[in-house]
Amino acid sequence: MIKRSMKKLTPLFNPQSIAVIGASRTEGKVGNTVLQNIIKSGFKGDIYPVNPSGSRILGLRCFKSILDTPKEVDLGIITIPARTAVKAAEECGKAGVKSLIVITAGFREIGKDGLALEKELVGICRDYNMQMLGPNCLGLMDTTTPLNATFASKFPKKGNIAFISQSGAICTSILDWSLKKGIGFSKFISLGNKADLNEADFIRQASDDPVTKVVLCYLEGVEDGRRFVNIARKASRKKPVVIYKSGATQAGAKAASSHTGALVGSDISYETAFRQSGILRARTMMELFDLGMAFSTQPVPHGNRVAVVTNAGGPAIIATDFIESSGLTMARFQKGTIDALRENLPEEANIYNPVDIIGDAKEDRYTFALNAVLKDPGVDSSIVILSPQAMTEPVRTARSILELKKQFPEKPLVTIFMGGESVEDAVNLLERHGTPNYPFPIGGVSSISGLYRYSKLQDSIPEKEEPDFERDRNRVKEIFKKAREDRRHVLFGSETTQIADAYGIPVPPARLATSPDEAVRFAEEMGYPVALKIASPKILHKTDLGGVILGLESPEKVMRGYTKIMENVYRIMPHAGIYGVDVQKMMPKGRELIVGVTKDVQFGHILMFGLGGIYVDMLKDVAFRLVDYLPESEIEKMIQETKAYYLLKGLRGEKPADIPSVVDIISRTAALVRDFPRISELDINPVFGYEKGALAVDIKITISR
Amino acid sequence: MIKRSMKKLTPLFNPQSIAVIGASRTEGKVGNTVLQNIIKSGFKGDIYPVNPSGSRILGLRCFKSILDTPKEVDLGIITIPARTAVKAAEECGKAGVKSLIVITAGFREIGKDGLALEKELVGICRDYNMQMLGPNCLGLMDTTTPLNATFASKFPKKGNIAFISQSGAICTSILDWSLKKGIGFSKFISLGNKADLNEADFIRQASDDPVTKVVLCYLEGVEDGRRFVNIARKASRKKPVVIYKSGATQAGAKAASSHTGALVGSDISYETAFRQSGILRARTMMELFDLGMAFSTQPVPHGNRVAVVTNAGGPAIIATDFIESSGLTMARFQKGTIDALRENLPEEANIYNPVDIIGDAKEDRYTFALNAVLKDPGVDSSIVILSPQAMTEPVRTARSILELKKQFPEKPLVTIFMGGESVEDAVNLLERHGTPNYPFPIGGVSSISGLYRYSKLQDSIPEKEEPDFERDRNRVKEIFKKAREDRRHVLFGSETTQIADAYGIPVPPARLATSPDEAVRFAEEMGYPVALKIASPKILHKTDLGGVILGLESPEKVMRGYTKIMENVYRIMPHAGIYGVDVQKMMPKGRELIVGVTKDVQFGHILMFGLGGIYVDMLKDVAFRLVDYLPESEIEKMIQETKAYYLLKGLRGEKPADIPSVVDIISRTAALVRDFPRISELDINPVFGYEKGALAVDIKITISR
Repeated sequence: MIKRSMKKLTPLFNPQSIAVIGASRTEGKVGNTVLQNIIKSGFKGDIYPVNPSGSRILGLRCFKSILDTPKEVDLGIITIPARTAVKAAEECGKAGVKSLIVITAGFREIGKDGLALEKELVGICRDYNMQMLGPNCLGLMDTTTPLNATFASKFPKKGNIAFISQSGAICTSILDWSLKKGIGFSKFISLGNKADLNEADFIRQASDDPVTKVVLCYLEGVEDGRRFVNIARKASRKKPVVIYKSGATQAGAKAASSHTGALVGSDISYETAFRQSGILRARTMMELFDLGMAFSTQPVPHGNRVAVVTNAGGPAIIATDFIESSGLTMARFQKGTIDALRENLPEEANIYNPVDIIGDAKEDRYTFALNAVLKDPGVDSSIVILSPQAMTEPVRTARSILELKKQFPEKPLVTIFMGGESVEDAVNLLERHGTPNYPFPIGGVSSISGLYRYSKLQDSIPEKEEPDFERDRNRVKEIFKKAREDRRHVLFGSETTQIADAYGIPVPPARLATSPDEAVRFAEEMGYPVALKIASPKILHKTDLGGVILGLESPEKVMRGYTKIMENVYRIMPHAGIYGVDVQKMMPKGRELIVGVTKDVQFGHILMFGLGGIYVDMLKDVAFRLVDYLPESEIEKMIQETKAYYLLKGLRGEKPADIPSVVDIISRTAALVRDFPRISELDINPVFGYEKGALAVDIKITISR
Repeated sequence: MIKRSMKKLTPLFNPQSIAVIGASRTEGKVGNTVLQNIIKSGFKGDIYPVNPSGSRILGLRCFKSILDTPKEVDLGIITIPARTAVKAAEECGKAGVKSLIVITAGFREIGKDGLALEKELVGICRDYNMQMLGPNCLGLMDTTTPLNATFASKFPKKGNIAFISQSGAICTSILDWSLKKGIGFSKFISLGNKADLNEADFIRQASDDPVTKVVLCYLEGVEDGRRFVNIARKASRKKPVVIYKSGATQAGAKAASSHTGALVGSDISYETAFRQSGILRARTMMELFDLGMAFSTQPVPHGNRVAVVTNAGGPAIIATDFIESSGLTMARFQKGTIDALRENLPEEANIYNPVDIIGDAKEDRYTFALNAVLKDPGVDSSIVILSPQAMTEPVRTARSILELKKQFPEKPLVTIFMGGESVEDAVNLLERHGTPNYPFPIGGVSSISGLYRYSKLQDSIPEKEEPDFERDRNRVKEIFKKAREDRRHVLFGSETTQIADAYGIPVPPARLATSPDEAVRFAEEMGYPVALKIASPKILHKTDLGGVILGLESPEKVMRGYTKIMENVYRIMPHAGIYGVDVQKMMPKGRELIVGVTKDVQFGHILMFGLGGIYVDMLKDVAFRLVDYLPESEIEKMIQETKAYYLLKGLRGEKPADIPSVVDIISRTAALVRDFPRISELDINPVFGYEKGALAVDIKITISR
């Protein structure tokens, strides 16, 4: 898998020769449409129609079998029904075909039989070392090659946006829409069932493609979460990767899995993984393409300071609102800029940002004001708003904007020409020459915001963490081994205490006592007060069964407490299989935090941090991270995202808590889980943060077989 | 003001006769454009150009003065410069003109001189009992009359949407855009400076207008918050009022006030006021018009259950996501519906919701599936998604949808035909016949969601609250009088305790002691432990100065505490003017809540409820309401909106707190503030909620002069 995936996808996107298996003379059949599309797209290599009954199709010599073609074939496109498609794939393998697009449906998406067939197909691809796109896809297009290897009726305008879609219908809709809007693409890929090649392969390929400037994806799920993250992190360092991921809600996820049969993880895991991969997540399809247009045409800004030039107050106020609420800020002009604006604009104009050049502004006033703010070093990007009024000159203004843009190539500039017919020609002019126009303020602002977010994201993709602290792996291994022998999944408190100890995670003293006397002895050794907790593999909710007693301050109370717990538990769960009672020293209360780890089916272990105690469930004030990419700097960011951070910094004159000690506990916990991936759940609740130090008070660990 | 505002605005929207003061022969001048527009719009009444130098303008007889017109004038439109405009208004008054549109700029928006001129103008309108729109506006349009009394170059398509805008530029942009999109309007109003008539007057008028089905507003602020709420509550019971309010962020608000000089309240107060008025708030201009189109053409649904029929999986997943996250739910079909779908759709189709009729669906399959789900009583509204694929029949499908719509007039139906050229004709057909189409799923879903939200809002507009509990107003009056005599704004703890008592708000015992002995006597009377708090009008942050000591449990400690506090305070603020020390009985800790009231410049008193204690600032878990409309049912809703509600219901097996007692404290606090509007701030922090009862532990009241 890994070996294969390192290969370039050249035979798919830029083949020397293509065979269409199932090529047909009948207009309207997929095998006919695909062949026509390849020819019409201007593909320059050899094209071999393959059909057992054929002689010539669409003017090309037809071959009875793939084995008959005169030269080696780089790309085989299979359009025949599923069962025969598998056989055809095998023949392709024998004929030395390098890659396949299987357009045919009727595989995993139709159920068990289809899945079996799909597995067979993948096996063949592996055996013959063929890369495969599909099955159950529309195919792919490349405007550079050029090649239209799909059965879609249209071919995109040439451009620098790569679009990768898990839905074929979204491909056709977007293609149709893009032609009307004049948006160009470098590649257009319909992923289908992703049986072999998946989003990760195509994201990597697009990120290495010199023509592509931005990668847009529509996804319903990812195929192999950890590989995806690994690849996406590298890709997003090279160029922006923007993803719209559907199936975020439960009902949406149901619809998504009935659609493609994909195993869809929870939305939090996607959010976390995308973030740690430097991926920009679009919240709507519109935003996906707004961002696409922006990245396709604009540079990444050096900062978040935006200037607005407008001939109308209302839309400027709206834009200002969005600027302030989307991580951007209104630029403050230098004195020179303000003076120049004051001298040259009418008295009623607003010379501060937003620069309101008033309703009767013609092209010259726009040019002057825009030039002045673009020259200002305090401006990182700019937005020009135009509302069609009596004196307005939309087309002349557009031309002038395009000229100015050439002089300031390092500053993003987008326009918001609002209206219909009155601005239509100007908008067309702007968009044809690489200035995206948005009909309402929100689109323009969210594009600039996306450009800026990307500039920050790139710096902040966390590195893989390899901690250098010492830890006693063998001790942990021993404990796991013993639990496995006992067929226990939940570790005892005394065991988790030892594990924490082996990894340098500070914990209160705790030991497993098997008699009241032993409990008293342990309590005397560690000092009062102590807590007693039942130790039994069957009992998860100890408190509910009366299995926990807190705050015992004398030998007598410990003695009585032990007996009481045993009575409680025997009464309710006589066959629980009790190992004894954990004696734990009670520590002074600190600021209550929680650290937890769960294992996500897609992305592996995810660590959670947040406010602890009784507020956990109520407030859900938590942040998440993949454990694989968790250097201390990232842990600090994670803490800062939560409201618990305010608690740690000290509320109302309290002294701050020892945040580095909390970071250390999280870092060591992450290392533990990385070292022992069999840990399926881990909960430290609470972690106490003190003015000096921090303590993992109660640790629960569950392991899988 | 009130008397005037009760009048109909007939002379403005449907005048018998219009005079244009400043009518001009010169093409391009406002006085010429307005006259032309009136004529071109097909206005049927008399039109009198007024110009001292004129004889005939645009074929109409011109008058030297408004006093010369042959008949009474209903509407005078003033287009001449500000200074002369005021004189013209006076002449209009003398001539018995009933209403004015002052298009002229140069009033409040240019500063002090302009404001003076504007006040003069308003005075004249009041003296002569004329209604005035403007100044500094575009004018208004009415497609029913018909009348274009603006200087905008275009006239909208006839329709049932009233659009009221505080920005003239947004009027022209939207007008231009609407003509391209084919959206029709009943009225189009540019508010300008709102010196006389404002948004409230026009919302009321539109809500009474039989042609108008939905009222859309773009606002930067409201003129008179309490009157606005009063009118909007009535209007939104009659028909949907959707508002896009800009100036939400600080920077936006700055831009807004520099634009119109409007006094803009904070966004929370607008959010609260809109909500209690039954207004739908749009989050973007796009959403404003998406909702406008939906209300303009669709009925209000009976519930939130949505059916989706689609020929493509991807967009259906996206739609499902948005449905679940916007207060709607995916309809579950009855058995009969499912059976019918199973029998008649291809095997690969998804017969549950979303109904996926597969990529090769033609018109007949759409018709069958849509008919089946519309017939289902478990479906309240439906969305049809179409992605252009090889077999798709967009236009035929559109026709069929329009037919089906007639058969199910009570169920909202919107379409999402995605794409460009391939669906263009179909989309035009749908929109021409009253089915709004959205290019992406989010627009369609948010429209249905808006329709549904309106159906719920209407029932939930709270009534004005007139509580029936007894209260001792005179006792409160006395305390206020004394504070006023002392020139104190902040009341003492002992005073707030008495006020609470007078209004039946339960508080711990507290008395003002002026000597250590007296403090001990009070403590003995109320029982230990007690808290001591310095009582001084100058000291706001008592704790910081060592002016508070808690948990005193004996006479000695109270004695020493009193002395200690005095020492602390004298050392730091020797001239503070100390009245003594409040002795307060300390109560057992309950669940910590906060109740507060602030006075908003726009909307009056706003009450806040939320989680109390040290978490207030950190979590900002609070809900807001206008105190005027706060029956107990609304207070309950308010509590349920906060996370404090979970705390009150009982976390982790805790018993629930006495929520009715908390509601009672809020209700009585609101009554207190309504009775004494001079209270400018009130804070009860904490309120303790117990299993039985609740207690206002610490009350702070600030009064204005």
